[in-house]
Amino acid sequence: MEVAILIYDRFTALDAVGPYEVLRLIPGARVSFAAREKGPQRTDAGSLAIVADFEIEEIDAPDIVVIPGGPGQSALMDDTRVLDWVRKVHSTTRWTTSVCTGSLVLAAAGLLKGLRATSHWLALEVLRKYGAEPTTERVVTQGKIITAAGVSAGIDMALTLVALECGEDVAQSIQLGIEYDPKPPFNAGSPEKAPAAIVDALRSRSRFLFQNLEGKASKADSN
Amino acid sequence: MEVAILIYDRFTALDAVGPYEVLRLIPGARVSFAAREKGPQRTDAGSLAIVADFEIEEIDAPDIVVIPGGPGQSALMDDTRVLDWVRKVHSTTRWTTSVCTGSLVLAAAGLLKGLRATSHWLALEVLRKYGAEPTTERVVTQGKIITAAGVSAGIDMALTLVALECGEDVAQSIQLGIEYDPKPPFNAGSPEKAPAAIVDALRSRSRFLFQNLEGKASKADSN
Repeated sequence: MEVAILIYDRFTALDAVGPYEVLRLIPGARVSFAAREKGPQRTDAGSLAIVADFEIEEIDAPDIVVIPGGPGQSALMDDTRVLDWVRKVHSTTRWTTSVCTGSLVLAAAGLLKGLRATSHWLALEVLRKYGAEPTTERVVTQGKIITAAGVSAGIDMALTLVALECGEDVAQSIQLGIEYDPKPPFNAGSPEKAPAAIVDALRSRSRFLFQNLEGKASKADSN
Repeated sequence: MEVAILIYDRFTALDAVGPYEVLRLIPGARVSFAAREKGPQRTDAGSLAIVADFEIEEIDAPDIVVIPGGPGQSALMDDTRVLDWVRKVHSTTRWTTSVCTGSLVLAAAGLLKGLRATSHWLALEVLRKYGAEPTTERVVTQGKIITAAGVSAGIDMALTLVALECGEDVAQSIQLGIEYDPKPPFNAGSPEKAPAAIVDALRSRSRFLFQNLEGKASKADSN
């Protein structure tokens, strides 16, 4: 089972590492981190770098592909080299997946048209511009495409995938191995649950970023 | 707010990246990944490398230190250079923390004697050999030392820390930012909840590893 995780400058680390920690435990799995260029890819905060051991073209037929999100994903949405690679690997994957705004890359590659899909809660309207049907579900499975909500949702997505691919026993064993019995100290992990003032503050802080992405999506759509 | 995360060959990626993704969002935080030698540190699976931008001695007074776990942590438990560094930084930290078997490094440094502490559920008896009082709680705060249970518990630990250090609003805003509204597909994340056959299989597969660690702990204690 070949697992490819796409990374790039200004990705969000947990988007990639949550699924990695689950998928690497699939019996017989081999995980490869791939990027446009080999070498360290810095996260959005700049303080963490994960090494891409492969250029994307070196990975041509993964069984599972994971596209994490992060601010740098904006530069992938109109990068024909990346979009071509995503379409190519998708044609033979067993599972094509995304975490957070990674789904915007799938959308930009034209893979989500007419499908239900999710993303970070702040990015759902961008999905709509690409012709997807955004939902606030945490993990959305449509055929072989699985999209996850923001950042930490990649763990739930990967466990869902393992259960579909390898059965519930394997998924439960992995869940136990990573002791995934979450107890968040607050009930504030979604815009429906968090205090309104906190939701509004985050929305307003990131308005510019997501307006830009919507603009990019509209432009792509009219091309 | 200076945050130092210790990494090393054969660490577990999510142990480090879970807390990273939360702590980096503390307003004004600067996160540094440090290791015995600068450069890429490979995880237990070998397929992921995070870059250590610093040698440990270059980081001498972090406000927060995070020690992740992973099989390679065994080599830290009797590495006087690492243990001296842990004791030194602990003397001036605001928070000294661990995830999973990272707590065994704190224990080997003599910091957990007589304290309640946690670790991966398979490693709790090793903690006892070092004179700590193991508990199955997910996050254990004792003064300025916070230990977390296995792998994914680092996210809960870091949010707990942020609430203590910066207040509940900041913690909730970070939780919403990383959309941490977990929905594991199974209720199998702890040995109390998982099917007994799955617990037994994992326990028996890792028996040798943890017997070795208990041996190491007993030897250290009798020195």
